[in-house]
Amino acid sequence: MAILSDMATEVLIPIAAIVGIAFSIAQWVLVARVKLAPAPPGESRSKDGYGDSLIEEEEGLNDHNVVAKCAEIQNAIAEGATSFLFTEYQYVGVFMSIFAVVIFLFLGSVEGFSTKTHPCTYSKDKECKPALFNALFSTVSFLLGAITSVVSGFLGMKIATYANARTTLEARKGVGKAFITAFRSGAVMGFLLASNGLLVLYIAINLFKMYYGDDWEGLFESITGYGLGGSSMALFGRVGGGIYTKAADVGADLVGKVERNIPEDDPRNPAVIADNVGDNVGDIAGMGSDLFGSYAESSCAALVVASISSFGINHDFTGMCYPLLVSSMGIIVCLITTLFATDIFEIKAVKEIEPALKKQLIISTALMTVGIALISWLALPYKFTIFNFGEQKEVTNWGLFLCVSIGLWAGLIIGYVTEYYTSNAYSPVQDVADACRTGAATNVIFGLALGYKSVIIPIFAISVGIYVSFTIAAMYGIAVAALGMLSTIATGLSIDAYGPISDNAGGIAEMAGMSHRIRERTDALDAAGNTTAAIGKGFAIGSAALVSLALFGAFVSRAGVKVVDVLSPKVIIGLVVGAMLPYWFSAMTMKSVGSAALKMVEEVRRQFNTIPGLMEGTGKPDYANCVKISTDASIKQMIPPGALVMLTPLIVGTLFGVQTLSGVLAGALVSGVQVAISASNTGGAWDNAKKYIEAGASEHARSLGPKGSDCHKAAVIGDTIGDPLKDTSGPSLNILIKLMAVESLVFAPFFATHGGLLFKLF
Amino acid sequence: MAILSDMATEVLIPIAAIVGIAFSIAQWVLVARVKLAPAPPGESRSKDGYGDSLIEEEEGLNDHNVVAKCAEIQNAIAEGATSFLFTEYQYVGVFMSIFAVVIFLFLGSVEGFSTKTHPCTYSKDKECKPALFNALFSTVSFLLGAITSVVSGFLGMKIATYANARTTLEARKGVGKAFITAFRSGAVMGFLLASNGLLVLYIAINLFKMYYGDDWEGLFESITGYGLGGSSMALFGRVGGGIYTKAADVGADLVGKVERNIPEDDPRNPAVIADNVGDNVGDIAGMGSDLFGSYAESSCAALVVASISSFGINHDFTGMCYPLLVSSMGIIVCLITTLFATDIFEIKAVKEIEPALKKQLIISTALMTVGIALISWLALPYKFTIFNFGEQKEVTNWGLFLCVSIGLWAGLIIGYVTEYYTSNAYSPVQDVADACRTGAATNVIFGLALGYKSVIIPIFAISVGIYVSFTIAAMYGIAVAALGMLSTIATGLSIDAYGPISDNAGGIAEMAGMSHRIRERTDALDAAGNTTAAIGKGFAIGSAALVSLALFGAFVSRAGVKVVDVLSPKVIIGLVVGAMLPYWFSAMTMKSVGSAALKMVEEVRRQFNTIPGLMEGTGKPDYANCVKISTDASIKQMIPPGALVMLTPLIVGTLFGVQTLSGVLAGALVSGVQVAISASNTGGAWDNAKKYIEAGASEHARSLGPKGSDCHKAAVIGDTIGDPLKDTSGPSLNILIKLMAVESLVFAPFFATHGGLLFKLF
Repeated sequence: MAILSDMATEVLIPIAAIVGIAFSIAQWVLVARVKLAPAPPGESRSKDGYGDSLIEEEEGLNDHNVVAKCAEIQNAIAEGATSFLFTEYQYVGVFMSIFAVVIFLFLGSVEGFSTKTHPCTYSKDKECKPALFNALFSTVSFLLGAITSVVSGFLGMKIATYANARTTLEARKGVGKAFITAFRSGAVMGFLLASNGLLVLYIAINLFKMYYGDDWEGLFESITGYGLGGSSMALFGRVGGGIYTKAADVGADLVGKVERNIPEDDPRNPAVIADNVGDNVGDIAGMGSDLFGSYAESSCAALVVASISSFGINHDFTGMCYPLLVSSMGIIVCLITTLFATDIFEIKAVKEIEPALKKQLIISTALMTVGIALISWLALPYKFTIFNFGEQKEVTNWGLFLCVSIGLWAGLIIGYVTEYYTSNAYSPVQDVADACRTGAATNVIFGLALGYKSVIIPIFAISVGIYVSFTIAAMYGIAVAALGMLSTIATGLSIDAYGPISDNAGGIAEMAGMSHRIRERTDALDAAGNTTAAIGKGFAIGSAALVSLALFGAFVSRAGVKVVDVLSPKVIIGLVVGAMLPYWFSAMTMKSVGSAALKMVEEVRRQFNTIPGLMEGTGKPDYANCVKISTDASIKQMIPPGALVMLTPLIVGTLFGVQTLSGVLAGALVSGVQVAISASNTGGAWDNAKKYIEAGASEHARSLGPKGSDCHKAAVIGDTIGDPLKDTSGPSLNILIKLMAVESLVFAPFFATHGGLLFKLF
Repeated sequence: MAILSDMATEVLIPIAAIVGIAFSIAQWVLVARVKLAPAPPGESRSKDGYGDSLIEEEEGLNDHNVVAKCAEIQNAIAEGATSFLFTEYQYVGVFMSIFAVVIFLFLGSVEGFSTKTHPCTYSKDKECKPALFNALFSTVSFLLGAITSVVSGFLGMKIATYANARTTLEARKGVGKAFITAFRSGAVMGFLLASNGLLVLYIAINLFKMYYGDDWEGLFESITGYGLGGSSMALFGRVGGGIYTKAADVGADLVGKVERNIPEDDPRNPAVIADNVGDNVGDIAGMGSDLFGSYAESSCAALVVASISSFGINHDFTGMCYPLLVSSMGIIVCLITTLFATDIFEIKAVKEIEPALKKQLIISTALMTVGIALISWLALPYKFTIFNFGEQKEVTNWGLFLCVSIGLWAGLIIGYVTEYYTSNAYSPVQDVADACRTGAATNVIFGLALGYKSVIIPIFAISVGIYVSFTIAAMYGIAVAALGMLSTIATGLSIDAYGPISDNAGGIAEMAGMSHRIRERTDALDAAGNTTAAIGKGFAIGSAALVSLALFGAFVSRAGVKVVDVLSPKVIIGLVVGAMLPYWFSAMTMKSVGSAALKMVEEVRRQFNTIPGLMEGTGKPDYANCVKISTDASIKQMIPPGALVMLTPLIVGTLFGVQTLSGVLAGALVSGVQVAISASNTGGAWDNAKKYIEAGASEHARSLGPKGSDCHKAAVIGDTIGDPLKDTSGPSLNILIKLMAVESLVFAPFFATHGGLLFKLF
């Protein structure tokens, strides 16, 4: 038996979650201490506790106007973001309601809506709850997953748009202060999401248990709906958000930079607020919902496999909750890690920012390894068995420790490789920048080749992770490896959300007409954020690969499939078609960005042409209309790719059955990971190659610049091509591979019973 | 029993091959009737049998000088091509010798170089020949395959470089005459390759049978070496040739068009001959060796499966030779089809060219369907059994007819879809051209999206083909489906080789300073060739997919594997890593083109800077040095991608065993097909989008042009990016997936016995 008692487990998990939420609120309170209003006359600023003199004071500028302007812009961005979210939620609401009915009907029909109990699949001597109730509870947990994702994403956006102007204002006091403000705000998002996700899952399990009692098989089958809910929301967040952010960005740039020749973030550009909103929508709400989906899915995949292993059969609650305990430990570890950035060390110079962020990753990984060892020792019996496609496989606690750790470290490796290929501190991006000498074409060719090449090491890391964890503990091993990669999600998300906040802070400084020196500071924050954003994307893709493999394993187990033989025609055509889906999906998302951006271009042109005095700065652009157009276009344009993702498993499973569906899932997984990694890294490399030329920090970089040179123009073309690749089509593929897998898992009982109609007919 | 007796089979196959060779020689003779020397004074030109007056005569130009100039240029191209081939053959020779030793040693070691007979694997009651002799004969057939490919490719190149200037001269008489000359020359290549391939294979089987006697299992195991030989040569042809052609093209363009602002094919450009040589090297020798490899491999895959099916077990020679009989029928059908282009219909106007070429595809497919039915009825018993991973499966002759036909028609569908996505007569390419309005970036984004989208229908066609043929006759069905797709190879290659001949003809007209009206005619021939080249590429990829699947099946059968279970860690890591290989390989080939092109750029710059009067046309460029640099660079640069292809199966098979290797092959296949199709079509679409703007044939096209406009510049960037994609990295992937599969097949006995060292150690 495990050292940790069931009672202790029942207590520790919610405590960790609540500590995480409390920490998150504390960070929010600290950020809120930065006042977004001019100090009342008579009150001395030194009472704030900050002694440094402001840049404005040094330069003799009027502090009051600047602060008021910042508050106004922040307000516009926050309103735009909220307006997008509320519009999105209306569609999400309709979609989720319909899909909830679909889930209930499909799963209810498995035993013809019977309310009779039936013998359990894996413990034949026991009676399990009726399929109709499984359908009902699956639907409920589906809705819970979706709502948790919505709430966490909404709060994250709120704090991000709350913190951007505050970061700008803090930048007046010094880069360190601005960094801490941005980072704390990111942490609010990270900890809220991780803790909420854990808490709601925990509560759901405990509530469902009151009905299910001893029937853990049914209980954890129903819980899988939670993963599907989280992932469905991620479809809107990642795909819709990805289209939004790039439509606004490309639309703003094409008219502003290219046609009107005004700088980026110029307040005269009607799309500028939409562009700033887009950063939050894509990188905060989108990334958050994506990682939340991965987290929920890997937990569910682990739980459903565990429920038919010795944990579930012997009703070992502590062992059963191992995935949740790992996540609990993750929250505590990330909490400690955050203190290193905000309290233990202090950022004094610009060049310390990037190392500080990277240190977060290393510290959290190192601490978490110890944490996993502790949890594995306390919560697991020395030996137990794991279900392995029809038979039980013996596993030891240190074996499982190895599975979780290898996932965790594989994530770090993927992060570092991504950084190597996308940061302009290393030769790959510099070579791409150098290729701009012979024009845009060579820039693009080198960039594509870089993206292809950047796939190699991450794939080997993922493969080793898969092999080791699979060999040790079958699909359960893969699920906990994914969970290991995601265990430091709070820190990962903090770093990730930090990026768009800094980006926005720079935009606000520009729009508020603040000093060039402030813009320099926010740019430095932003540049570090670009690299960490690329790392975050690599990380999200890597975890998506492991998660979808774990879900695939859980699906196969639940559908009662024992072998998925490539040497069977049903499977091989599934593999071939599945490997094609990422291409189809990418073609759709790329086209969606194009169409949405075109609508934006038309609106921006219209405003420039019809609003008098806009170019001169006397007329006021209609920001809200641009936000509305981006919102409507992105949601409309996400329908075709969304339909492809949601309908494929249903159609394949119903018409061709579980074997072909297994092939499709495996094909989409192995092909999609490559497309996603190469697209993200290619885009990131082009972005930073452009920045490398613009910054001109080295002899080589200066020989390519300055801004406006032929090389720079070639680099800008590459950057524009990379935008939809790295922010829309690439990351959206995570959703493709995960969502198809979790949907298959939820509908597995239906497909196993009624699937393969076409083959049955002929 | 079949209607056709064994004796009849023994006679009919070589007769068909010899008829094909004779037809090919006849075409050569007809092309040679065009004299590449000025008519001797006094001799009336009308004696040639052609009454039309020449354009020169109409325009009052001196015929003699033009003809002499053409002859000179043709000579330079022919010399360059020969020089490339001979350099390549030196490397091929070394490589083949080493690899022959490797094959002998690896296969010989299977039974410890024993010379004792052993019980057969599939007919336990019989004695089979010793493994050492299998190793020896495999090595011999490997060399035979390589030599056949070399000889056919060499002769094809000879006739192509013999015919290009003749096509130019015939263009003076009319577009129809020029078309026939180019087409006949292409037919020489097509028929030589198809007939030689068949004849040598047939002779090898008959010779080997003298040693093997009743041991057909060993006999056809050894014959698989033929496929490996053909495919290894294709590695040099496709990859080396692909790098050559694009290095010369990009190198010539970057300095000539961009830096020196001189037109394409200008004789002052030192790389112009290398560029023209490159067209032949890439599209004639490269495509020829690729398709020959596919043809040899699919025949071998079919034969090796048949040898352990009822045909082999009952020693039914006619049934055994079914794949060869299909190919024999193919030669006859293609011969009839060719007459439609050269004799039955006559081309009178430019707009008839493209339909005439497309008609070739339809006629050959329709006739061949009848041909297959005939062969299936005559050569197959009504019922027979096919080996299906451990058991025998009953198949009927009309079932097999369906397998071959579905491959044939899938090929036609793939061809037509490819045309739709790459021809500027349809909306996809026009949309890409339209995207040039907003610059190069949108052009590239739309082009990439088009490439991704163009994958969908071909993949469905391939999947249906796989499902039907697999279900009917297991892996034998797939092999004959591939053979069906390749059965009209003679026509396919004729059309394909026609392209570069016309392209060269245009270049020669330009360099010889011939009238603009001639250039217009050759351009029309070339434009039709571009579309058919794209079709040919789609076709080559589609057949490569089927072939490698068939080889995969043969490998699995021969390695004694009964199940390749995705739910096993060994297989899944193979799948993931295999799906990564096309990216790694593409990164390598794209970088190779870049490096080789850079060397060319330096040389061309050097010549422009050091040779006095070169720009003024008084100095003579050193064409030969450019050819040499392209040759050396391309062969050096193909080593890394070549090593990746050749070593992967050996390393994976030896260290990780047949299960992981199966995963790698399946992964590379399903992922590689997508990358190859999308890369080829993206490149083709950009090329034709540029041509669409240049030609300005419609209102829409004119609104984007003319040459030199901003739109056109954006289109040129897309075209340059597409060059390595469509001519190097895309088509090279065929080699990756086929060569790895056939290599695994040949080494299967070794891997099955000694493979998986790493897993055995731990």
